[in-house]
Amino acid sequence: MSSLSTQPYKGTRDYYPEDMRVRNYIFDMWRKVAQQHGYEEYAAPVLEPLEIYTAKSGQELATEQTYTFTDRGDRTVAIRPEMTPSVSRMVAARRQELGYPARLYSIANFMRYERPQRGREREFWQLNTDIFGVDGVQAEAEIIAMAYEIVKAFGASDEMFAVRINNRKLINFMMHDYLGLDAVQSHLMVKLFDRKNKIPAESFRDQVVDIFGEDRASEGAAKIAKLITAKSMADLPAELRESEAVLEVQELFTLLADAGVANATFDITLMRGLDYYTGTVFEVFDMHPDNNRSMFGGGRYDGLVGLFGVDPVPTVGMAPGLTPMQLFLESHKLLPEFVSTTDIAIVVLGEDTLEGALGFARKLRAEGVNVEVDISGRKLDRQIKAVLKKQVPFMAFVGEDELRHNLYAFKDVASETEEKLSLERIVTRVRDYRRRGTMDEIDALFAE
Amino acid sequence: MSSLSTQPYKGTRDYYPEDMRVRNYIFDMWRKVAQQHGYEEYAAPVLEPLEIYTAKSGQELATEQTYTFTDRGDRTVAIRPEMTPSVSRMVAARRQELGYPARLYSIANFMRYERPQRGREREFWQLNTDIFGVDGVQAEAEIIAMAYEIVKAFGASDEMFAVRINNRKLINFMMHDYLGLDAVQSHLMVKLFDRKNKIPAESFRDQVVDIFGEDRASEGAAKIAKLITAKSMADLPAELRESEAVLEVQELFTLLADAGVANATFDITLMRGLDYYTGTVFEVFDMHPDNNRSMFGGGRYDGLVGLFGVDPVPTVGMAPGLTPMQLFLESHKLLPEFVSTTDIAIVVLGEDTLEGALGFARKLRAEGVNVEVDISGRKLDRQIKAVLKKQVPFMAFVGEDELRHNLYAFKDVASETEEKLSLERIVTRVRDYRRRGTMDEIDALFAE
Repeated sequence: MSSLSTQPYKGTRDYYPEDMRVRNYIFDMWRKVAQQHGYEEYAAPVLEPLEIYTAKSGQELATEQTYTFTDRGDRTVAIRPEMTPSVSRMVAARRQELGYPARLYSIANFMRYERPQRGREREFWQLNTDIFGVDGVQAEAEIIAMAYEIVKAFGASDEMFAVRINNRKLINFMMHDYLGLDAVQSHLMVKLFDRKNKIPAESFRDQVVDIFGEDRASEGAAKIAKLITAKSMADLPAELRESEAVLEVQELFTLLADAGVANATFDITLMRGLDYYTGTVFEVFDMHPDNNRSMFGGGRYDGLVGLFGVDPVPTVGMAPGLTPMQLFLESHKLLPEFVSTTDIAIVVLGEDTLEGALGFARKLRAEGVNVEVDISGRKLDRQIKAVLKKQVPFMAFVGEDELRHNLYAFKDVASETEEKLSLERIVTRVRDYRRRGTMDEIDALFAE
Repeated sequence: MSSLSTQPYKGTRDYYPEDMRVRNYIFDMWRKVAQQHGYEEYAAPVLEPLEIYTAKSGQELATEQTYTFTDRGDRTVAIRPEMTPSVSRMVAARRQELGYPARLYSIANFMRYERPQRGREREFWQLNTDIFGVDGVQAEAEIIAMAYEIVKAFGASDEMFAVRINNRKLINFMMHDYLGLDAVQSHLMVKLFDRKNKIPAESFRDQVVDIFGEDRASEGAAKIAKLITAKSMADLPAELRESEAVLEVQELFTLLADAGVANATFDITLMRGLDYYTGTVFEVFDMHPDNNRSMFGGGRYDGLVGLFGVDPVPTVGMAPGLTPMQLFLESHKLLPEFVSTTDIAIVVLGEDTLEGALGFARKLRAEGVNVEVDISGRKLDRQIKAVLKKQVPFMAFVGEDELRHNLYAFKDVASETEEKLSLERIVTRVRDYRRRGTMDEIDALFAE
């Protein structure tokens, strides 16, 4: 029989312990910020009926990018490509029982058919935070402030990223009332704006002309040119500034200033692909020249809960992704060095000592220390070599003499220093070491 | 358009915050025990090529229970029904780079076509812990001791559960040398033993007779009767006690006694369904009369890594499941009461106060307190009613006067007591409350 491949499925990846340390660092920070804002964790199944996506997510995501198949009971199911429809379903199912505003978050994996490339994987992980039950722009302000704080929590400065904001109501007003486009033309224009930074300027211009049609081409192109060069709301044409949606946008910016969000700007060209947004939309951009791209986004989608046969519930949400966040942190050198969750690796001096070494490990564990013992019975040098591959911060050498005198050679792997310590002192050393992590965090807080 | 169903996909479940609190409690405890033993977290994709399961997992799991489909690139893929083949693939891919013994754990979801029933779901969550690179029975002792400690960590007593142990080499010796069965007959007998507690005694006896065939029926039935009544190794027929595998089992029981595993017994009828086990197998049983069933199990599987084209790596692993563990904890009343991760819900007294209340919340968050603010602008009584649905432990009432005097009505929801506290005192109260949880744990440790 030919052997099986060790490769993971196309576009997915394995997380070995060293990868998992980064992932857990990011997830833990997300969790901390979400919980500080009163968001509570939930989870939904990895499979859903396909129709919850076809209803509103947009053609491309629901039909072209989603993993769908027919199950043995002839149901058409999908591996979730996003969380929004699932959490809307869950809220609809307990419409009456939930306390509003309901603040929910989850950290989960999703799958989409993507051509695998840097930062784009077929299986990917996201934080989803959503607030249900608030009509007013206060909800948008909260979600966007949390987006800002989630990036800041990793130590980012305001210059490293930017928050860009637009509003679907304003977009609709612009498309229909200002540009005079019909529904089909508007749809094409939204998609074109979405691709604006990915295509050459001439190609963009040609498609603008196509959408307007020959007789309105020059008038249309002039208006579009004015729009895409607008740097703030003040640069917008007067007709647009009179739309009602503008007031909402202005109120949002006031609230964001109150909340200390220092790098938010208005961007009339920001569309966001998904069909379910009904008001504010926003995206957070990585400003690093090597990695200048949208990291994540969100917005208001008031219509989704109502699709499940209950009264609509106004909702605002966002979804930072693991890989874009990790690329951001790597580009800006914001990731710390990680070590194993194991504190001490016990090197066993002689096979007869194994029983004693195991007892020693049990005593350390009872004190809350994470300990592994080399139970392989191998020679000393091979045991040490194995430990060095695992980034365990400390090694303790345990033999019969050491056990008899309660005095162990205890090695700090990073500094390559070694001392003779009793079991009790070893426990203290590990506790100090862990506290050092906490102290570093506290120092960082005061240094801000 | 008819509305979408709010029900999750058949056999799967939604986790609302109150369900998630239980789940996180169990996951956190698993994580703690695994890390104390030096296990490091990894993760694998939710989709895998189907062939990694068909190779060794056993006919039923790979072909009847697995969610498989063909992707758009014509690959036959499976939603993982278990973790063992994935982690074996990962170890094979880095056979040289890993330090041995390699200790790995993951907490992940899996899918199988199951007829949904109590404790059996189509989507389910498991902890998987595996140790790679140890030939000797020390590895089994470590995994089984960890299985024992994982249950004990929740406060279980030794009487609430039982560990039962058998050995595939002993089973093979029993089937071929003692019972004189050929390969097909052995396979049938293993499956029959697996079902023993689920079928009536007469049905079991009839099938025993069928497997042996007419001429060996009475001899065979007598031998089987002797086997299934054996309560310990000493009760086994002398021919079996002479098998080499018995020495391994005896050594394992000595090591388990050293490790303090107080409720492990030998059970010659324990088979475990999966085809890949090569040595020790074990299961942990819930002893509660209402819920008497296998909670989880594991064993040695030395052949899986080698399927991926590298030299074999000896492996022992286990996989506790979330739902069986939760049913165990519920049956034995071992689950504590849970509250929200949000510490304080801020009730806003008057719409003009919202800005002040948000500033107050930001100050609390800067001190590490988890705070939600009712930004809905609703009346007082509706705000309070909503908080009571969420099990948030404290409410703070914030109005203009309160902000001016830095003195807030602060309500302990469980005790229904209320005091007037400054922001600084509120921070202290929340810290004390959180520390109380930690102190309870420390007290419990000393009480053991």
